Amino acid sequence: MRVGVLTGGGDCPGLNAVIRAIVRKGVQSYGYGFTGFRDGWRGPLEGYSMPLDVPSVRGILPRGGTILGSSRTNPLTLDGGVRRIRENLAKDEIDALIAIGGEDTLGVASRLWGEYGIRCVGVPKTIDNDLSATDYTFGFDTAVNIATEAIDRLHTTAESHMRVLVVEVMGRHAGWIALHSGLAGGANVILIPEQRFDTAQVCAWVESRFQVRYAPIVVVAEGAVPRDGELVLKDGSRDAFGHVRLSGVGEWLAKEIERRTGKEARTTVLGHIQRGGTPSAFDRWLATRFGLHAVDAVRDGDWGTMVALRGTDIVRVPLDTATAKLKTVSPAEYAEAEVLFG
Amino acid sequence: MRVGVLTGGGDCPGLNAVIRAIVRKGVQSYGYGFTGFRDGWRGPLEGYSMPLDVPSVRGILPRGGTILGSSRTNPLTLDGGVRRIRENLAKDEIDALIAIGGEDTLGVASRLWGEYGIRCVGVPKTIDNDLSATDYTFGFDTAVNIATEAIDRLHTTAESHMRVLVVEVMGRHAGWIALHSGLAGGANVILIPEQRFDTAQVCAWVESRFQVRYAPIVVVAEGAVPRDGELVLKDGSRDAFGHVRLSGVGEWLAKEIERRTGKEARTTVLGHIQRGGTPSAFDRWLATRFGLHAVDAVRDGDWGTMVALRGTDIVRVPLDTATAKLKTVSPAEYAEAEVLFG
Amino acid sequence: MRVGVLTGGGDCPGLNAVIRAIVRKGVQSYGYGFTGFRDGWRGPLEGYSMPLDVPSVRGILPRGGTILGSSRTNPLTLDGGVRRIRENLAKDEIDALIAIGGEDTLGVASRLWGEYGIRCVGVPKTIDNDLSATDYTFGFDTAVNIATEAIDRLHTTAESHMRVLVVEVMGRHAGWIALHSGLAGGANVILIPEQRFDTAQVCAWVESRFQVRYAPIVVVAEGAVPRDGELVLKDGSRDAFGHVRLSGVGEWLAKEIERRTGKEARTTVLGHIQRGGTPSAFDRWLATRFGLHAVDAVRDGDWGTMVALRGTDIVRVPLDTATAKLKTVSPAEYAEAEVLFG
Amino acid sequence: MRVGVLTGGGDCPGLNAVIRAIVRKGVQSYGYGFTGFRDGWRGPLEGYSMPLDVPSVRGILPRGGTILGSSRTNPLTLDGGVRRIRENLAKDEIDALIAIGGEDTLGVASRLWGEYGIRCVGVPKTIDNDLSATDYTFGFDTAVNIATEAIDRLHTTAESHMRVLVVEVMGRHAGWIALHSGLAGGANVILIPEQRFDTAQVCAWVESRFQVRYAPIVVVAEGAVPRDGELVLKDGSRDAFGHVRLSGVGEWLAKEIERRTGKEARTTVLGHIQRGGTPSAFDRWLATRFGLHAVDAVRDGDWGTMVALRGTDIVRVPLDTATAKLKTVSPAEYAEAEVLFG
Repeated sequence: MRVGVLTGGGDCPGLNAVIRAIVRKGVQSYGYGFTGFRDGWRGPLEGYSMPLDVPSVRGILPRGGTILGSSRTNPLTLDGGVRRIRENLAKDEIDALIAIGGEDTLGVASRLWGEYGIRCVGVPKTIDNDLSATDYTFGFDTAVNIATEAIDRLHTTAESHMRVLVVEVMGRHAGWIALHSGLAGGANVILIPEQRFDTAQVCAWVESRFQVRYAPIVVVAEGAVPRDGELVLKDGSRDAFGHVRLSGVGEWLAKEIERRTGKEARTTVLGHIQRGGTPSAFDRWLATRFGLHAVDAVRDGDWGTMVALRGTDIVRVPLDTATAKLKTVSPAEYAEAEVLFG
Repeated sequence: MRVGVLTGGGDCPGLNAVIRAIVRKGVQSYGYGFTGFRDGWRGPLEGYSMPLDVPSVRGILPRGGTILGSSRTNPLTLDGGVRRIRENLAKDEIDALIAIGGEDTLGVASRLWGEYGIRCVGVPKTIDNDLSATDYTFGFDTAVNIATEAIDRLHTTAESHMRVLVVEVMGRHAGWIALHSGLAGGANVILIPEQRFDTAQVCAWVESRFQVRYAPIVVVAEGAVPRDGELVLKDGSRDAFGHVRLSGVGEWLAKEIERRTGKEARTTVLGHIQRGGTPSAFDRWLATRFGLHAVDAVRDGDWGTMVALRGTDIVRVPLDTATAKLKTVSPAEYAEAEVLFG
Repeated sequence: MRVGVLTGGGDCPGLNAVIRAIVRKGVQSYGYGFTGFRDGWRGPLEGYSMPLDVPSVRGILPRGGTILGSSRTNPLTLDGGVRRIRENLAKDEIDALIAIGGEDTLGVASRLWGEYGIRCVGVPKTIDNDLSATDYTFGFDTAVNIATEAIDRLHTTAESHMRVLVVEVMGRHAGWIALHSGLAGGANVILIPEQRFDTAQVCAWVESRFQVRYAPIVVVAEGAVPRDGELVLKDGSRDAFGHVRLSGVGEWLAKEIERRTGKEARTTVLGHIQRGGTPSAFDRWLATRFGLHAVDAVRDGDWGTMVALRGTDIVRVPLDTATAKLKTVSPAEYAEAEVLFG
Repeated sequence: MRVGVLTGGGDCPGLNAVIRAIVRKGVQSYGYGFTGFRDGWRGPLEGYSMPLDVPSVRGILPRGGTILGSSRTNPLTLDGGVRRIRENLAKDEIDALIAIGGEDTLGVASRLWGEYGIRCVGVPKTIDNDLSATDYTFGFDTAVNIATEAIDRLHTTAESHMRVLVVEVMGRHAGWIALHSGLAGGANVILIPEQRFDTAQVCAWVESRFQVRYAPIVVVAEGAVPRDGELVLKDGSRDAFGHVRLSGVGEWLAKEIERRTGKEARTTVLGHIQRGGTPSAFDRWLATRFGLHAVDAVRDGDWGTMVALRGTDIVRVPLDTATAKLKTVSPAEYAEAEVLFG
């Protein structure tokens, strides 16, 4: 049995740990051979590959990024995409594929198996932790730790200057990173994409914090949107009201807070440092287990499934349902945190 | 309503986060008053307490240890212990207690409610993660991160000198810290209390690592025991065979490996640094949620229960069953990891 | 003897360590009393103070920020400023002041002693490390460590996506943070305020990095300026050419690199996380020694001096010359690093 | 010009950074070729080498250990050692050697040049920072940071249980790691090899700490010795008084403190984690500069010298005098710290 492995979408701490576990177990327990496809679906599409054996995965467990490279190439939108994949798999005598990626990457895997019979198994990857089929995805814990450490650091600056500090974290559609790092970092306000925020309420929390002579930290997910309807667009395009917005929501909010409360406010946009570097212990453990179980799914011929975490168990779920629904922060979960605001 | 709070047993990163969440939510949502009892059950036993309000819990979220102090005092083994607790609660007009602790501390809470009608709610705490009623306890993730970082550091020393490095981590009865940090740190052998180890097999793994010109890391839980029946006693007392052992299992194993393989071997005993200092983001999040839900259990009059994590939900379980069974590493879980040894 | 202590200017990891050392040694070795003035020079100006004794400095050594607060108030620019300071010192029977701060704060101390006979001793503080009188200032090492860790994290993202990553670090007038973190992080290009950069040369280095199939990291100090004369203004005001610039140099540079090389480029602006949080060991050691020696300068009546690091010794230098000259990166020091670019 | 590079003695974070800088600058600025000799002086002695070019040093900057391996082999104590080195250098057409190491490794380099005319340049390496010719050596700052972080973690455990915690750090002959990490970590007692300690005085400091209701941390260098003349021997051999000691000084001291004060005391021996893993930013910067300047010394034909840090400058000093004198903590430096004890 020869198995192709690929990683797609944005990079995420733990990808290398998955690759290593797949190869170590596949070779030692089942005698499989492996081919590494480069740059996501571009690899099997263009026959762009690299050897993948036990020596080539030594030392990669603690390293961020992916030795296979990544891309957002979608073969299903290209003429003859499926045919070219099939040819390249045949040429290298690849029997099955393990695709590690998010909604898009796994969506391709799901259709390649479901519609074209190409044998695929999936490993879910989303740093935003927004897949409903799994309790956690790897990379999320690392991102939350990095954001929390940043919030820890900002507290002392806020206090020393009695300033508002707004921290913009990742999360376009789901507020998990904001919610977890905000709770862990003792933020005084947490704003998420799932609930449009009321700027006046944010300012009230900010002022209540100053009343006890502390300075507030506001954590805001990049996808959070103010309730009054103004869209905040990073790219300078016009919003629904015809205004040009030149900054992200963090910078916009800091200015609004300054304008409304008269307190100095500053923004920090954490950006890419949230998704790079060495994975946390939890993410390495989860990624390693995902890899071990993905190889078992191949051995069992359990095509069209992906591995997932439920409690402390790794289970398998159908790829098509697994990626169907975004897991977002529920009103109850947000309300639980809101008690600690101000 | 006035609620007493106490922390018992060994210290654990996240205790302060629990206390803070209890007080913040209790005061703001329900208007409760709080009394902090000092040094575990010694506090209500001797009427040794401190005020506990919102200002007194400011800034404690990221700090390790417990502002309430801790002890292993067991009031049920003392003459008139229950009577004295009852008197001290009455004197301070305490309506209920939240006890944060491990098996022993919660066992007292369980009996105080079950046998004496003293209203108690529990929050589980064990750095070893060995309670069967909850997926995780806070403190564990921090300990695993610290041990993993130590293993990361030791890899480079092992390689540079082509030495065996044995790392002894916490875990007297359960191997969770060894298993998780060993997997996350890429250890070449992981030894746990649940399965007596075969020193010859350990040496075989060690030698197979040298054959690919890398140097091995062996992670061993302090409670791990060799299969051939020799007991390893730290305190210098005699084992079943009448031998005096002067070292922990880590040091013993390093000497055995040296003797049998001829390779240099060194031991590092991580000790107390695993349980101190600032909690990881996961532990702060879990501890905070435990605290928030413990106050809800008080409000609901759900006496004799403790909070627990199931998947991503916080649930309540009866105190008496919750602490009844130790959660240990199953043979299947160990076998999953064993694939990566050598 | 009663001594007033104040901290001025931007916050900096290590300020609390200085305060603690001053108080611990002053009380224990010399029997001094201390008064903490709040918010820099605003404190003695408005008689805004707090008690400062041994218990009040317990536990602050590892904490960022300053328990005394800070401000940029300059009493010399205010009517009757010096008179009000003199009155407030007399009222509280303060015999001398220890001012901890940068160029501005120490410049005031220098003139208060030199022109008005108010007894002052200084402790230098600049996170940018740009004071010529001392080898290092505390806070700098912490900032460099944080920036280096961020660069480490960004490397893996750069590689995985074959993107250029531009990291903007602190440094308006001096490139020390960029130079040290760039060298330590293995950046492929380092740009500093002291030398206008040639965007074409930057692009050449970027492309040479891609030629060996790695992705480049460009570290740029916030005060770096392109050679072709375009000013980069954060605040949206017009530059010398009448253009509006909407971003910092980091964002500007990423866009230029994209435009010229056709490679994807992203920016990360580290901002305030560089100056907050717990100080590195070096900064705690240096800050503690500065504090211990500042108290000795008070005991010796060595007014108008500040402490400074020379090699491994703490020396005293006159305040007026100490703050006269900015320490910037010399062409030779930059050339030394340039060898590693590309 | 072909240059051989070797690393000798104990491993130390920053060795790889030196190697990388040597190769990058040597190749790019001077067109040199390099040969990596393996395992210290064993490499040129046995002709055991590996290729060393720009691709082979990519990515090693942040990694601890040494890609060249290390040993304590001393060719001058072996029959024909110098002759064999000369032959192996001739065979590979090596014109000069850069030796990176401590007293022993550099002592060999010094004699090879001085007595045998073999062209050598040195880079000093000692994690203990005990070379008098240089202000700092790389590796030391990393070790101090690791020890300080451990002390930070132990504070919370000490407080929670009102226990004495004894931390044993590296330092057989010099107390620099103990002194710096003790000051940075806010230790209540620091004991170094340079000054025999008085156990009664240690207990007095310990008790004074408990009197203000805090728990003490005692940092002790592994080479510290009690004043009353009892030797503490790790290996179980007999001391001058004929007693067998079964533990290091840390464990001995904890027991003595328990016995004399009646307070619980625990020991943590940091051991190898102090010398492994990724170097701090300072150490990467210093190691890189050492490497760059060592290549310049080769270009200048400045044989028999080593690079050294003086203030912020890299200078060259004769190898023979450089390693002649151990740099130890002076009584004045220790007294400066002692003010903060208790």
